[in-house]
Amino acid sequence: MSGPAGAVLLPIDLQRAIDHPDWGERNNPAAEGNIAALLAYWRSKAWPIWHVRHDSVEPNSHYRPGQSGHDWKPEAQPMAGEPVIGKHSNNAFIGTDLEARLRAGGHKALVIVGVITNNSVEATVRMAGNLGFDTSLVADACFTFGRRDWNGTWRSAEDVHAMSLANLADEYARIVTTADLLAA
Amino acid sequence: MSGPAGAVLLPIDLQRAIDHPDWGERNNPAAEGNIAALLAYWRSKAWPIWHVRHDSVEPNSHYRPGQSGHDWKPEAQPMAGEPVIGKHSNNAFIGTDLEARLRAGGHKALVIVGVITNNSVEATVRMAGNLGFDTSLVADACFTFGRRDWNGTWRSAEDVHAMSLANLADEYARIVTTADLLAA
Repeated sequence: MSGPAGAVLLPIDLQRAIDHPDWGERNNPAAEGNIAALLAYWRSKAWPIWHVRHDSVEPNSHYRPGQSGHDWKPEAQPMAGEPVIGKHSNNAFIGTDLEARLRAGGHKALVIVGVITNNSVEATVRMAGNLGFDTSLVADACFTFGRRDWNGTWRSAEDVHAMSLANLADEYARIVTTADLLAA
Repeated sequence: MSGPAGAVLLPIDLQRAIDHPDWGERNNPAAEGNIAALLAYWRSKAWPIWHVRHDSVEPNSHYRPGQSGHDWKPEAQPMAGEPVIGKHSNNAFIGTDLEARLRAGGHKALVIVGVITNNSVEATVRMAGNLGFDTSLVADACFTFGRRDWNGTWRSAEDVHAMSLANLADEYARIVTTADLLAA
């Protein structure tokens, strides 16, 4: 498939908080390497990279500003001149100027990576698609954690991830891989 | 639990299109009866009911205006004076005046029912929660359909529903039952 050349790359919530052992079992151990490769590729093309940072307002969150968990993961460290969009909710469009910035810059396409697939990533992808942006989600540059469903059945991280992608693929975004984008 | 007395009841996409056999196996066969009971209860209290209607712009959708699928399901037929909010995307807040109407009316709480759990319902619940509304989702007054996840594994309607509720319960909404609300 052709890659969205020139799209805004939007890495979401890639901060040290996501490495806390509280989260439990995760999937896609190669995600950070894939994200680093995409960042390097985007920079080599001088395409836009806008970093979404979670600035939690919840007292017990590892993502609260002022803690080490709020710092960037090393693979996702912004470079000088790359915008940082701080958010307080799961959705990068709510309470931020993300939509206004995209419209003002004439940006019509987004490529989304980050964490966690079924929470901030999914909320942002759903909104991006419904707002009419040409939205690609990089399946192997996101990850999530295992959890119980509402009926109490344990779902592995990979199962939670795969259900989230299926919901998004139908309606909100194109699901791509890192290799698709680097080969384009 | 106490029910959200006076909340806006927001039934989503309860149109005849959802009965088309194309959708396949569904869960919660009692959902329509529960929705009818909630509508009757809300009307008996003179609490607000705002109906969200899907006005599809996709040529092959059973929800396209002008087809019988666009008509209300009999259990969810609006009564005179109850607002109808037409939407074109999955999310009832996008391209509509729903948020503006809620803010203008001073409404802080929403109770959401309808279809399908993991698509328009989930997109709207995520947005409602992130916008700061006190959001309740009625688990047995929603339903969905079986599907494959992104890895190709078949997930029953009940499994898809239960995964969606688990994602929402953590972060976006209170999950309640019809009985919780009628008993409140």
